[in-house]
Amino acid sequence: MRSGLFPDDPAETRIEILKATYAALLQHGYADLTIDRIGQHFPKSTSLVYHHYEGKDELLIDFLSYLLEDAEAGLGTESGASADERLLTLFDRIFTEETPEERSFQRAMAEMRAQAASDPEYRRHFTEHDRFFRDRLADIVRDGIEEGTFREVDPEQVATMLHTMLSGAMAEQVSSDLDLSTVREEAEAYVEVRLLAEGR
Amino acid sequence: MRSGLFPDDPAETRIEILKATYAALLQHGYADLTIDRIGQHFPKSTSLVYHHYEGKDELLIDFLSYLLEDAEAGLGTESGASADERLLTLFDRIFTEETPEERSFQRAMAEMRAQAASDPEYRRHFTEHDRFFRDRLADIVRDGIEEGTFREVDPEQVATMLHTMLSGAMAEQVSSDLDLSTVREEAEAYVEVRLLAEGR
Repeated sequence: MRSGLFPDDPAETRIEILKATYAALLQHGYADLTIDRIGQHFPKSTSLVYHHYEGKDELLIDFLSYLLEDAEAGLGTESGASADERLLTLFDRIFTEETPEERSFQRAMAEMRAQAASDPEYRRHFTEHDRFFRDRLADIVRDGIEEGTFREVDPEQVATMLHTMLSGAMAEQVSSDLDLSTVREEAEAYVEVRLLAEGR
Repeated sequence: MRSGLFPDDPAETRIEILKATYAALLQHGYADLTIDRIGQHFPKSTSLVYHHYEGKDELLIDFLSYLLEDAEAGLGTESGASADERLLTLFDRIFTEETPEERSFQRAMAEMRAQAASDPEYRRHFTEHDRFFRDRLADIVRDGIEEGTFREVDPEQVATMLHTMLSGAMAEQVSSDLDLSTVREEAEAYVEVRLLAEGR
């Protein structure tokens, strides 16, 4: 999922630090992460990391912003697919068996999300994050209505529900061993009965 | 939501400790919780808490089990409502504006859920927790089919999706400021188009 997230040989120090942060997060998770542990994945001196960031949380908020910038830059790459196909592709991405790297990364994200319960900076970030992904889902629904694939539903309302369902799936993948494959089936049934226009 | 979770004057020491744990969790959250802080809400000596539990996490796993026992004991209290009414009542409970106490409690639960990403004991608990609530949702769907309110859907599959959606709503309430009231609307639309039998 995250291949190509960072260049092989970053030119900017900020990107080098964020790449080291990603590697350290996979290895240690959020709770056990320290700037020194990030330094162990950083090819230059750890003091340079301290020079750029006041502490671990300031660095991680910048890391999360980078992920969002990357997601924004990656938009508009799907070509020619209809709205229902785009939704099903998205479901496949979420419900596919995760690689160990994706799993470690999702764990770290869940820990940072829990942090948002008490830390306003994390909360501000995850609000922006959720808003971004909800808006992208609403765009797909809106396109589907325009192209005649979908019924005249409220795109925002449908997107909010889809996003909530996908957030729940990611939260459960991280914290319980229940099988989620049937959510994929039921999400498809929902798209069919609620969204697909008559006669499709 | 949690009123009546503990008796006013618990007879058993275990219940007294768990009641103190609840109060300390509301005040400090999971990360900053210590046995000494639990002791501050415990009418007897803190050493008694150490006598009962090896440490904070062993105590919290027992606390989570108590919550699940309480949820199991509270079953079967709804009388006469049809399956769709029972689902809507449940949605109301999840999507209603939370009291400050509920909010603090949900934060602590989210922190413990994130803990399940790396700790097998928490993971075992949340698997059991999710399994319990998913089964209760499947019971409602099954009752709806039997009473003729709902179509012949797969109760397990529908319950899994509903549970995932409700988990997502709880995760987002804790970690972002987005408005979730439209999820309630869309969940109702889903019940209508996917579950309600023709002519109802």
